[in-house]
Amino acid sequence: MSKEENNIIVSGMRPTGRLHLGNYHGALKNWVDLQDKYKCYFFVADLHALTTAYDRTENIANNSYEMVIDWLTAGLDSKKCTLFIQSHIPQVSELNLLLGMITPVGWLLRNPSYKEQLTEIFKKKYAGQEANIKIERAEQREGGVVQLSQKVTLAGGLSELTEQELNELAVYGFLGYPVLMATDILIHKASMVPVGQDQVAHLEIARDIVRRFKDIYHSDILVEPKPLLTKVSRVPGLDGRKMSKSYNNTIELGEDVDAVRKKVMTMFTDPNKKRANDPGNPDGCVVFSFHKIYNPDYEKRCAECKAGALGCVQCKKDLFAFMEPEVKEFNEKRKIFSSDRAEIEKLLQGEAKEAMRSAQVTLDEVRKTMRLA
Amino acid sequence: MSKEENNIIVSGMRPTGRLHLGNYHGALKNWVDLQDKYKCYFFVADLHALTTAYDRTENIANNSYEMVIDWLTAGLDSKKCTLFIQSHIPQVSELNLLLGMITPVGWLLRNPSYKEQLTEIFKKKYAGQEANIKIERAEQREGGVVQLSQKVTLAGGLSELTEQELNELAVYGFLGYPVLMATDILIHKASMVPVGQDQVAHLEIARDIVRRFKDIYHSDILVEPKPLLTKVSRVPGLDGRKMSKSYNNTIELGEDVDAVRKKVMTMFTDPNKKRANDPGNPDGCVVFSFHKIYNPDYEKRCAECKAGALGCVQCKKDLFAFMEPEVKEFNEKRKIFSSDRAEIEKLLQGEAKEAMRSAQVTLDEVRKTMRLA
Repeated sequence: MSKEENNIIVSGMRPTGRLHLGNYHGALKNWVDLQDKYKCYFFVADLHALTTAYDRTENIANNSYEMVIDWLTAGLDSKKCTLFIQSHIPQVSELNLLLGMITPVGWLLRNPSYKEQLTEIFKKKYAGQEANIKIERAEQREGGVVQLSQKVTLAGGLSELTEQELNELAVYGFLGYPVLMATDILIHKASMVPVGQDQVAHLEIARDIVRRFKDIYHSDILVEPKPLLTKVSRVPGLDGRKMSKSYNNTIELGEDVDAVRKKVMTMFTDPNKKRANDPGNPDGCVVFSFHKIYNPDYEKRCAECKAGALGCVQCKKDLFAFMEPEVKEFNEKRKIFSSDRAEIEKLLQGEAKEAMRSAQVTLDEVRKTMRLA
Repeated sequence: MSKEENNIIVSGMRPTGRLHLGNYHGALKNWVDLQDKYKCYFFVADLHALTTAYDRTENIANNSYEMVIDWLTAGLDSKKCTLFIQSHIPQVSELNLLLGMITPVGWLLRNPSYKEQLTEIFKKKYAGQEANIKIERAEQREGGVVQLSQKVTLAGGLSELTEQELNELAVYGFLGYPVLMATDILIHKASMVPVGQDQVAHLEIARDIVRRFKDIYHSDILVEPKPLLTKVSRVPGLDGRKMSKSYNNTIELGEDVDAVRKKVMTMFTDPNKKRANDPGNPDGCVVFSFHKIYNPDYEKRCAECKAGALGCVQCKKDLFAFMEPEVKEFNEKRKIFSSDRAEIEKLLQGEAKEAMRSAQVTLDEVRKTMRLA
C-alpha cells in the first residue's frame, strides 16, 4: 500500500444539509485527494452543531444523512477512508469528559473564536437590527487577587439583554466545544489536521491539551496534531457574494444538469462589459472564478475577455461545457446514493464500527493512564 | 414483588478507599435499607473524583474496587440493587455531553458548592498555612451591559496566586460537575435521591435541567427527581473529631475484631469523669455516640453514666459487646469478598450491563428528542 499510513488525518463538517460547490471546492475536494494519501477519518459533526443550535435541532438527523450522501457523491470512498457520524461514537463523549477534567476554563474563555462565535449567534438572533456588539474579557491581578471579568455590550436600538438570553448564549457545551474538537482529533491520534487559517487556534488548544496531559500523567500516548495547510479554491455564489444557502446563490452538489446550466447563465459578470466585444475584467467576475477551476486554458480565456474577443453569454456556455461532465457525474451518483437509504445506513454502521475500534484504543490507553478502574 | 418499583433511587460515592463506620452509619446503612424498598442504582463516582483530583489518580481504580467490597460487606446485594462503577457506563458520558449543551454556564457559576469546593481545594493545597480565602462572584447589569466578575482573594502569608495555580483549580470538568451529577440521576430516571441538606443545591440543578429540557424540546421524558431526606446517624472518630482517614481516628468497615476492640477502648470520654463512680456527661462522649446506635437500652445507660453508676472502661467493654456481632460479621464477609477479585469483577460486569441497559433507554429517548441521527 502506498499510503503514508504513518500520517493520520481527521476532519469534520457540521451537518448544514446539502452541500454546494462552495463547500466542495473549499474543503470536500481536498478530502477526496487526502484519502488517497493518508489514513483519513472524516465525520459529520452533529454534536458540534448542538453547541450553537441546541434549540433548533429538527433537521440535524436529516442534514447528517444528506451530507454523507454528498460526501459519497463527491468521491469519498469508504474503502479509502473512514467516514462516520460523530454522535455514533460513544468513545468521543467518554474521552471528551476525561479531557475536560484537565482543561482549564481560562483556556476556553481566551479562545478567540469563542468571542467570534458568540458574536455570530448574537447577530443571527438580532438579524436586521444591525447590532453593535462588543464583548470584552479582562483579567486583573493585584497582590493575591485575581479578577476575571466579561462584559457584553449591545447597542443600536437593542433592548437590554435579559438573563435568559445571556444564559442561552453561553451554555456549558458551547464553552467547551474546543475540548470536543480536540477530542475528535486526539481520539484517532491524528498527526495532521487540514485547517484554514481561521482554525489554527482550535488546533492550538488540542496541542495544549496534549502537552498538559503529558505534564500531568508523564505519558506520551496522545499525539500533537500539526496543521496541514492545504490549498483550496474559493468559489463565489452566482451573485458574487459568498456562496451560501441563505443568499440563495448556490449550485448544489449533485444538482440537476439543466438546472445548473440555467444557473451558470445567470452568473454575475463585469458590469462594464455591456456588449459582447467590450473589453472585460476577469477579476471579480463570477464566471471567471469558475473558469479558473474548470477551464484548463484559463489564462488564454482571461486574455480573450480583456481583449473583448467574446461575449459573456458565450463565455458562460463554454464554462458550462467544462463543468458538464462533473455536474452530470455528481447528479447521477447522487441519484444512486440517495435511492437506497438502507444501504447508506448499513455502510455507516460499518464505518462507525471502524471509527469505534480506533477510538477505543486511545480511550483505553487514556483510562489506563488516568488510572480508572 | 413488594418493592415500590415506581420509585427509583440513584446515589453515588466518590472512591475514597476503604470505608469506615462514619461512612457506614452516615450513608451506606441507609442504602442497605433502601434497596429493600425501591429500585436502586448505587455507583462508585470515579469520574467525579477526577473533577477535583485529576492530578492524583494513582489510587482511583483500587479505591473503586475496595469501595465495592465494602458495599457488599455492608449488605448491598446485587440481587436487590444495581451497583456499578460510573466510568464503566459510556452512556453517562454521552448524556452528560448532551445535557451540557442546554446548561447555562451561569447556573454552574452560581452553584453554591462550586465556591465551597474551590475553597476546599485551596485549603488542601495550602494546608498548614491557614489561608484566609474569600471567593466572591458578582453580576452587574446596567442598560445593555452585563458584567460577570469573580474575585479570588488569598491572604495570610500566601504568595500571589499564579496563573497556573488558578488554571489548575478551575478546570472545565470541575465547573461542570453538577451537570455530571444531574446526568447520573436523570439517566436512570430517578424519582428520588437520598440527600443531606448540603446536597440540595445539586439536586436543584438536576431539576432545573429537566425543566429546561422540557421547555426547549417539549418533552416529558426526563423525570424531576425529588430529595429523599433520610435520617442517618453521625458517629465521631475515636478522638471526638469527625471520623476521617486523615485524622487517623477511624474504625474501618470490616476491620479485624481485636483491632476494633482495642480502638473502642481508646475512645475519648468525658474528661471530667476521672474515677469510675464520678458522675459523667454522655453528651459529647464518643462512647455514647456509639451506644446510641448499638445499645438498645441507650437511655438507661445514659442515666447510669450521669449517676456515676459505672466507669468508662466497663462502658467501653459493654459497647464493644454490642458492636461485636456486627464487627465480626463484617470482618468475615469482607474476607470472603476480598478473596476473589475475579468474582467481584464478574459481578461488576453483570451489574454494569444492567446499568447500561437502563441508561441506554434514556439516552436513546434523549437522542431522538434532540433529533440526532
